Amino acid sequence: MSQPASNAKPIILTGDRPTGPLHLGHFVGSLRNRVSYQDDYNQFIMLADSQALTDNMDDTNKVHRNVVEVALDYMACGIDPAKSTILIQSQIPELAELTFYYLNLVTVARLERNPTVKQEIVLRGFERDIPAGFLTYPASQAADISAFKASIVPVGEDQIPMIEQTNEIVRKFNRLVGKEILVECKAVVPEVGRLPGIDGKAKMSKSLGNVINLGASADEIKAAVKMVYTDPLHLKVSDPGHLEGNVAFIYLDAFDTDKAGVQEMKDHYTRGGLGDSVVKKRLEAVLQDMLAPIRARREELAQDKGYIMQVLKEGTMRAREVAARTTDEVKAALGLSYF
Amino acid sequence: MSQPASNAKPIILTGDRPTGPLHLGHFVGSLRNRVSYQDDYNQFIMLADSQALTDNMDDTNKVHRNVVEVALDYMACGIDPAKSTILIQSQIPELAELTFYYLNLVTVARLERNPTVKQEIVLRGFERDIPAGFLTYPASQAADISAFKASIVPVGEDQIPMIEQTNEIVRKFNRLVGKEILVECKAVVPEVGRLPGIDGKAKMSKSLGNVINLGASADEIKAAVKMVYTDPLHLKVSDPGHLEGNVAFIYLDAFDTDKAGVQEMKDHYTRGGLGDSVVKKRLEAVLQDMLAPIRARREELAQDKGYIMQVLKEGTMRAREVAARTTDEVKAALGLSYF
Repeated sequence: MSQPASNAKPIILTGDRPTGPLHLGHFVGSLRNRVSYQDDYNQFIMLADSQALTDNMDDTNKVHRNVVEVALDYMACGIDPAKSTILIQSQIPELAELTFYYLNLVTVARLERNPTVKQEIVLRGFERDIPAGFLTYPASQAADISAFKASIVPVGEDQIPMIEQTNEIVRKFNRLVGKEILVECKAVVPEVGRLPGIDGKAKMSKSLGNVINLGASADEIKAAVKMVYTDPLHLKVSDPGHLEGNVAFIYLDAFDTDKAGVQEMKDHYTRGGLGDSVVKKRLEAVLQDMLAPIRARREELAQDKGYIMQVLKEGTMRAREVAARTTDEVKAALGLSYF
Repeated sequence: MSQPASNAKPIILTGDRPTGPLHLGHFVGSLRNRVSYQDDYNQFIMLADSQALTDNMDDTNKVHRNVVEVALDYMACGIDPAKSTILIQSQIPELAELTFYYLNLVTVARLERNPTVKQEIVLRGFERDIPAGFLTYPASQAADISAFKASIVPVGEDQIPMIEQTNEIVRKFNRLVGKEILVECKAVVPEVGRLPGIDGKAKMSKSLGNVINLGASADEIKAAVKMVYTDPLHLKVSDPGHLEGNVAFIYLDAFDTDKAGVQEMKDHYTRGGLGDSVVKKRLEAVLQDMLAPIRARREELAQDKGYIMQVLKEGTMRAREVAARTTDEVKAALGLSYF
C-alpha cells in the first residue's frame, strides 16, 4: 500500500561529511556514479555537516567552510542541481527529530556491537571517551535515509553494517506502529571500490596526506604523480616490473579510457623494458586531461558564491519538504500530533 | 553580558511525563509550588511526551491520552495559562535538535555514570537492553532546560545528578564556542518532599497502585483513606500509637491547615485513647474538602476540550519561539547557519 507509484523514480540518498575538499578517491568511489545516477533516480545528496560535528566539535569552522567547498566539487564534477537535490543536513531539523525518536528503537548494546562504529571508535582513538553522538550516529543515519524514503544507498563495503542497522530500525518502527510508513533500503557497493593513496596505502585519505584533490592545480597534479608508488623492485628499466599494488597502473585502470593502450603498457612493463617515468607520464597526461575541465568549472563556480548558496538553499528546502512529510507521518503514528 | 535584564522574572522549567493522571504526590511535590511560583517567575511547564516515549514505545496511546489529562490536572489545581506557559515537548522540534547537538558534548561513559540514569535502568529492569534514548535522556533534559534558559529547575532529590549533568553540558558548550550562550541552572528541591503511598511505601506511585488521584471521586477518596497505613501495633484504642511512618498523620501534616488541631491529635494518639478511625475521619474530611473543588474544576474544564487544546497550542507556540531563538544561537555558534 505504501509502494511508490510505478512511474516514480527510485530514491537514492548519498552524501559526504564536509570536512575537507573531495579527491580522486571520492571521484572513483561515489561522484562518478552519482553523475550517472541523476537521470534515472531521484537523488538526494547530503552535506552531512551535523554528522561531521560528532568528531569535529573542536573545529566547527572547518565543517562550515567545507560545506561550500564540497558543493563546488559536486557541481564541478557534473552534479546538476536541476536533477539532483543537494541539501545541508543541519538545516533540516526533522532529521534531528527522527534521530531523537529512533534512539528509542535501538539498544545501547546493539550500537556497541555495530562493526562500523566499533572500527571508527578505534580509528579515532576514543576508547572510553566516546561522545554519545558518535555511538548513536547509526540512529542519525537511519533518520537521514528514512526521512527521504530512500530505497538505494550507495556505500563503501565497510558501511554495510550501518545500512543493516537502518533497516532494523525501519522494521522495528513499522512493526511497532503497525503500518508500513518507513521504507527499507538496499546498500549498493560500487564496482570500482576504494582507490589507494598515491603512497600505495589502501585508502586515499586527507588525513593520510596521500590524496589528489579534484581541485588540484596542474603543478599539484604533476608533483603528486611523481610521488605515486610503483614497484620498489623495478630498479632498472630493463627489469620486469610488477603490477600488484602498483598505484600508477591502478590509477590508469581507473581513469584511462584507452583500455587497450593500458593493457599494452602493462604487458611491456611486466616483460621488462618500460620505465616508471613513461608510465607516470601517461598517468599525468590522463589526470591533467580529466581534472583540467573540473578545475576550470570549479573556479568559475567559485566566483559566484551567491549562486552556490542559492542552489544549496533551494535543494535544502526541497529536501526539507520531503523530510517533514515523513516526520509528520512518524509522529502521527507515535501519537505525537495534537493540533 | 548575557545577564537577563534586572526586571525580567527568573525562568523556571518544570513538567511531568504524561503517563497517567496526577495524584497527591505530585500535588505536594510540585503542583502546589508551581501555583505559588507563577506570579513571580516566568514558568514553563512541560508535558514531556517525547521523554515519556523513551520507555513507553509499546503504549504510545497512553502517552497521547495523558497529555490532555495532565493538562486538566494542572489547570484544575490552579495553574493559570495566562501566567504559566504549558507546552507539549514533542511539538517543539528545536528540543530534539538541541539534544542532537548536545549528544556530542557528553561521553557514553559519563552517561553511564549518571546515578539517576543508573537507578532508573535498574528500576525498569532494562539490564543490557537499555534503549539508547533512555541512556541519553540527560542530554534531552539539558536541551529542555537550556532551550528556555531556565535558571531554576524544581526537582526531587534523586534528580539532582541530572541537573549537574545539564550544567556540565552548558559549561562545555559555552567554553567550546567561547560565548556565554547557555545558562546554568539551579536545582530547587521542595521543602516538603516525597509523599508516601497510602500503603506506607516510600513513594506514591501509579505503578505501585498506592495513589489518590487529583481527580478521584468522593467514593474513591473514602475507600483510599480506609486503606491508609497507620500503626500496625496500635491494636486497641487505648494503646499508645506511633507516628513514625504513620501515613494518616503524614498526610494530615501535608494537607491539614489546622496545625494546632493536628498537633493535639498527635499528642492524644501517642498517649493512647485515640482510635485510627477518628484520625482517618479527619483525614478524609480534609482530603474531601481539598479535592472537591479541584475535581469540580477538572470536570468543568474537561467539558471543553477545544479550550484545553487552545491553551496547549498557545503555550506551545509561545515556548517554541523561545526555544527557536536559543537553537538559532546554538547553531550559529557551531557554524551551522548558512542562509
